[in-house]
Amino acid sequence: MALIVQKYGGTSVGTPERIQAVAERVKRWHDQGDQIVVVVSAMSGETNRLIGLAKAISEEPAAREMDVMLSTGEQVTIALLSMALMELGVDARSYTGPQVAIRTDSSHMKARIESIDDARIRADLDANRVVVVAGFQGADALGNITTLGRGGSDTTGVALAAALGAAECQIYTDVDGVYTTDPRVVPQARRLTTITFEEMLEMASQGSKVLQIRSVEFAGKYNVPLRVLSSFGEGEGTLITVDHAEDDMEKPVISGIAFNRDEAKLTVRGVPDTPGIASRILSPIGEANIEVDMIVQNVSADSTTDFTFTVARGDMKKAIGVLEKVAKDVSAREIVADSDIAKVSMVGVGMRSHAGVASKMFEVLAKENINIQMISTSEIKIAVVIAEKYLELAVRSLHSAFDLDAPAS
Amino acid sequence: MALIVQKYGGTSVGTPERIQAVAERVKRWHDQGDQIVVVVSAMSGETNRLIGLAKAISEEPAAREMDVMLSTGEQVTIALLSMALMELGVDARSYTGPQVAIRTDSSHMKARIESIDDARIRADLDANRVVVVAGFQGADALGNITTLGRGGSDTTGVALAAALGAAECQIYTDVDGVYTTDPRVVPQARRLTTITFEEMLEMASQGSKVLQIRSVEFAGKYNVPLRVLSSFGEGEGTLITVDHAEDDMEKPVISGIAFNRDEAKLTVRGVPDTPGIASRILSPIGEANIEVDMIVQNVSADSTTDFTFTVARGDMKKAIGVLEKVAKDVSAREIVADSDIAKVSMVGVGMRSHAGVASKMFEVLAKENINIQMISTSEIKIAVVIAEKYLELAVRSLHSAFDLDAPAS
Repeated sequence: MALIVQKYGGTSVGTPERIQAVAERVKRWHDQGDQIVVVVSAMSGETNRLIGLAKAISEEPAAREMDVMLSTGEQVTIALLSMALMELGVDARSYTGPQVAIRTDSSHMKARIESIDDARIRADLDANRVVVVAGFQGADALGNITTLGRGGSDTTGVALAAALGAAECQIYTDVDGVYTTDPRVVPQARRLTTITFEEMLEMASQGSKVLQIRSVEFAGKYNVPLRVLSSFGEGEGTLITVDHAEDDMEKPVISGIAFNRDEAKLTVRGVPDTPGIASRILSPIGEANIEVDMIVQNVSADSTTDFTFTVARGDMKKAIGVLEKVAKDVSAREIVADSDIAKVSMVGVGMRSHAGVASKMFEVLAKENINIQMISTSEIKIAVVIAEKYLELAVRSLHSAFDLDAPAS
Repeated sequence: MALIVQKYGGTSVGTPERIQAVAERVKRWHDQGDQIVVVVSAMSGETNRLIGLAKAISEEPAAREMDVMLSTGEQVTIALLSMALMELGVDARSYTGPQVAIRTDSSHMKARIESIDDARIRADLDANRVVVVAGFQGADALGNITTLGRGGSDTTGVALAAALGAAECQIYTDVDGVYTTDPRVVPQARRLTTITFEEMLEMASQGSKVLQIRSVEFAGKYNVPLRVLSSFGEGEGTLITVDHAEDDMEKPVISGIAFNRDEAKLTVRGVPDTPGIASRILSPIGEANIEVDMIVQNVSADSTTDFTFTVARGDMKKAIGVLEKVAKDVSAREIVADSDIAKVSMVGVGMRSHAGVASKMFEVLAKENINIQMISTSEIKIAVVIAEKYLELAVRSLHSAFDLDAPAS
C-alpha cells in the first residue's frame, strides 16, 4: 500500500466522459490498496473562456480578481471528479486549495506555495476516501484566493506529494512520457525510461514543455519521485529521478535534444568594453518585464565589444524600443535584431564525465553547413542558436549522430 | 450617507455588458456618498450549464459536491463585477461567502445562514471600497462549501443587510416592482409603491415569484427594509415595509391578486371520519418529499369524509402512487386527481378590518359562472381553486371589482 499523488491536466478532464475515464483509472489504483490524492486542472478551454469574460470588461483586470475568477475552473473539476468516483462506488471528497490550507504568498497570478496543512487530507485517506484537490490555487495569510500561474497544477501535485511524503507524484498528460526529442520532428525519437531532475529542468526550459519548470525544481528540492504518464493509454511513462545510478555504464552521454523556435536575437554592436556595461544594457530590459534567455559577450579586439542576447519572440519589438534609448546612453554603434532563429540544446548528465560532446556537436552541424550564431553551455547542456530554417535538419542530424535513434534498451 | 446592500440577479449580470451596466449603477450610488455592498448571483445560464455537467456524470450527484461546483457561478460574477468597478475608478473587492464568514448549517443545497462576521466588510467600506459578495453560498463549521438553494442570493442580501444594519436592501431584478397582479394577464395591473412583509409573503408563496420567500421572512424577522427595483430602468420600485401606516385611510382592502397554475388537486374519497386520519394520509406524502399546499377537509355527513389537498403539478403522479397504498390502509373509497386547476389568491392586510371581502369575491366569481372547488383562508388572504380555463377571467374580474385597476394614487 502506497500513498500516491496523481495529477490530471486540462485535456485529461476536458469532458464529462474523460472525467469518468479518470475516475476509472483512480479506482483501479484505489482498488489495489493504494491511498490516492488526485490533483486536477480546469477542464480544457475553461480558463480561456474565463479570461475572455474578464477581457470583455477590462484590458488589465486586477490580479486579485483574476485569481478569484480563475480558481473556479479547478473547483468545478474537483466536484465533477468526486461525483464520478462516488458513481463508481469509491468514496471521495473534493477540496479547493484554500480548504486544505495551501498557503501561498500574496503574489496574485504567480503565487508561491509556503505551506500545506495535511491533517484534513490524512483524515480522509485514513477513512479510505480518495481526496480530490483543486490544482493551481491557494490562499494567502489573509484568506485572499491566489493562483500559481499557468501550469501551476503540477506544482500543487508535487507540493502535496512532498507534504504527504508520497511514494510518487504521477503527472498524467497527453504524452506518454519524456522523449529524446519532439517526435513530430524526429520520428525515431524514443521515450526515456528515466531522466534526472537536472536534465528535465534543462529539457523543460529549452522548450520541451511536458512539465512546468517550477514543479520539477520543487520535486528535486523535496526529493519527490515524479513520473510523467499518458492519461489516455497505459505504460510506465518516464520517471524523473534524483540521479542516474553511478554504476550505469550503459548510460548515454546525451539524454535528449530540446529546441525552441520562439526566440529572437538582439545584438548591441560597438559598445565600450568597460565594466558594468552588461548591467547597463540588461537592467532596463528587466525593468520592462522582458525575460532574457541566452546572453553572449565575446572578448573584444579593440576598445568596443558586441553584446548579444535572446528574448521571447513576442518581446522583440518592445526590447528594440528599450535598447534604442540604452544604445544612445552607452554610445553603442547600432542595434541588430533577428527573429529568424532557433535554439537547439543537447542535454545530458553524462556530459559531465565525457569530453568532446561540444566538438562533436559542432562537427555534426558543420558537416550539414549549418552556421552557429551563438553558443552557451552549462554543466549538462550545450545550446546553440542557428538560423530557424536549419532547425529540423540540425535536430535530426544530432539525434542520429548521438545514437538517440537506437531502440530503448 | 447610508449603508445600502444591493442584490443583482442572474439576468442583471448575464453578460459582460450587463455587468458593466451594473457597475455604472453602483458607481452612481457610491459617488453620492453611500456605502455599498453588492450581492450577485451567477450569470444567467451558468447554473444550468453546471448542472448539465454534473448530470452527465451522475444522476444523483452528491449534494456536497454539487455545492462545491455550483458556488463557482457566483464566484465568477463577483470577480467580473469588481473588475468592472475598478475599470470605472471605483475601488472594489470581491469575497466568496466563506471568505466573509457566512456560516451556515450543513444542509447541502438548502443550507440556512447561522451567522455572518461583518468585520472584513466594514474595514473595506471604511476604506471607501465597494464590497462585492457572492450570493447563495456559505460554509459550515468545518469549512465545507454550502449553498442556500435556488434564489438564495436574495437571502444573502437580506442577511448581510441585517448583519450590517443597512438602511435598505435593494433587490434588482427584471421587473420594476411588485404589481397588483401579473401584467401579462391583466394589462391594467399597477405597480405598488409599498406592500407589507406579510402581504409579500402571501403574494410570493402564491406564485408571484418576484422574491424568494425565505428572504422575505428573513427581512421581516430582522426588520430590514426591502425594495424591489428594475436593474434595466430607473424608478422607485416597491418598498416592502413592516406595516402600512395605521392612519392610511385610503389604504385599499386588497393589495394584490396572486395565482398559480402549477398545482394539482388530489382527493381521497370516503375515508373514515376518525381522529388522526389527516396525518395518516399526509405523513407518507411528506416522507416522499412531496410538498403540500392547500388542505381542505369538510365536515362529514356520515361516518366518512373526503380529504382534498394540492401539490405541485410535477408531483401529482408520485402522490397518486403514495395514495394508492394509503387508501388501502385507511379503507378509502377512491382517489380522484385533477391537474386542470388553478389557484387564485386575494391578498391584503386591509382584509383584517374589513368584513365582506370573501363574500364579494365569491359573488364576483359566481357572476362569471366560475365554480369554486376549494377555499382556504388566512388572516390576510383568501385563496380559491377553480378550473384552470377560467383563470384569466377570474383574475381580471376580481382585479376590476376590487378597484385595483385605478391608477396609482
